[in-house]
Amino acid sequence: MTVHSETRHVVVLSGGLDSTNALALALSLGDYPVRAVSFDYGQRHARELVAARRIAALLNIEHTVISLAGLLHGSSLLCDGEVPEGHYAAESMAQTVVNGRNLLFASAAVADCAPRDHLWFGVHAGDHHIYPDCRPEFWDGLRALVRDAYEVHLTTPFLHATKGEALKVGAANNAPFWLTWSCYNGGEVHCGRCGTCVERAEAFAEAGVDDPTDYADVDYWREVTA
Amino acid sequence: MTVHSETRHVVVLSGGLDSTNALALALSLGDYPVRAVSFDYGQRHARELVAARRIAALLNIEHTVISLAGLLHGSSLLCDGEVPEGHYAAESMAQTVVNGRNLLFASAAVADCAPRDHLWFGVHAGDHHIYPDCRPEFWDGLRALVRDAYEVHLTTPFLHATKGEALKVGAANNAPFWLTWSCYNGGEVHCGRCGTCVERAEAFAEAGVDDPTDYADVDYWREVTA
Repeated sequence: MTVHSETRHVVVLSGGLDSTNALALALSLGDYPVRAVSFDYGQRHARELVAARRIAALLNIEHTVISLAGLLHGSSLLCDGEVPEGHYAAESMAQTVVNGRNLLFASAAVADCAPRDHLWFGVHAGDHHIYPDCRPEFWDGLRALVRDAYEVHLTTPFLHATKGEALKVGAANNAPFWLTWSCYNGGEVHCGRCGTCVERAEAFAEAGVDDPTDYADVDYWREVTA
Repeated sequence: MTVHSETRHVVVLSGGLDSTNALALALSLGDYPVRAVSFDYGQRHARELVAARRIAALLNIEHTVISLAGLLHGSSLLCDGEVPEGHYAAESMAQTVVNGRNLLFASAAVADCAPRDHLWFGVHAGDHHIYPDCRPEFWDGLRALVRDAYEVHLTTPFLHATKGEALKVGAANNAPFWLTWSCYNGGEVHCGRCGTCVERAEAFAEAGVDDPTDYADVDYWREVTA
């Protein structure tokens, strides 16, 4: 751990859209140190980690990958599961729940922080429906807990925003969308059919921002978005 | 992860007195499955893990050691620090605080649980003074969080008890005290001088239970206990 002499901002960067928008916002806010941490937890879409590294390099910030290998179980997002297709809010997406995931991510990030650090997560309102540990009650409870126990300040700027609204903030702060990765399948390009690809395409449309993504199936998201 | 068809009880077992008392209590409560998990986090006193393994073997329960290597930093309990002597409540013991420790332990244990599991921690009231993440507010907040997000039930039977009171409960339930390890120094026998040795000897005296521990310095705890 680095010993910090001043308040620092630590952004949890998955390499996806939301955390990249949070990072762009953190960097825009002022003249203080910002660094990023990512997690390697055996995820199927390890392309995310490559994306995170490229984003941190482009933005010229320190980037730490924390290994959580073997600590998470039981989801289709890990290497031993099937990735469901279709709309993110559908029942099939419940397969993508990982027991303890956001709690473990936050805990490992807190353990990497110094007291008085600000710890940023790009969680947004669109996540709430299926993941209990994305809901405002979870983050507000955790915020109080880590503030009182460790003097770490959890910052969740998009907690009450949609993914599209978060994307607008990112666009206003020059987030490098073209480097982000969302697809749950680890192909050469985004598949366009998995839940997170559909959600990604919808968010760009909602925000009125040009989508730079190369999708294998370009139109599928319109078909499943009623 | 094992998939469980019924409620199970998972006891976080450090190999010290408190968690062993919690395990003895869990085993006494009825005819349901009980297993133990321990953490390897680069602790100086890895003798604890040997103790945990022996306790689980004696009690004939499943025992998992979860590696948290590299995830915790900045304490004298890790291999790169000095172990302070004296009374546990003294200022010097603040050196033994590990940022994010109990939150990370709880998170990793939750991730190893299935929904509806009961997760036991042997935290007690004597810990509250120096460790913010041992205080009742911390555990009560975390209890609500993991119940709502993951349907895991945190059980902290000694949260409002002293270490001596917890020890009485352990004694009543045949906790194998002779197999437990407390000392922060990794010698052949307990040093008798570090904070946790002093606390251990005090707890046996408070509980009126014979202390089976072999201390290198037998009388030091009386000198520092006013």
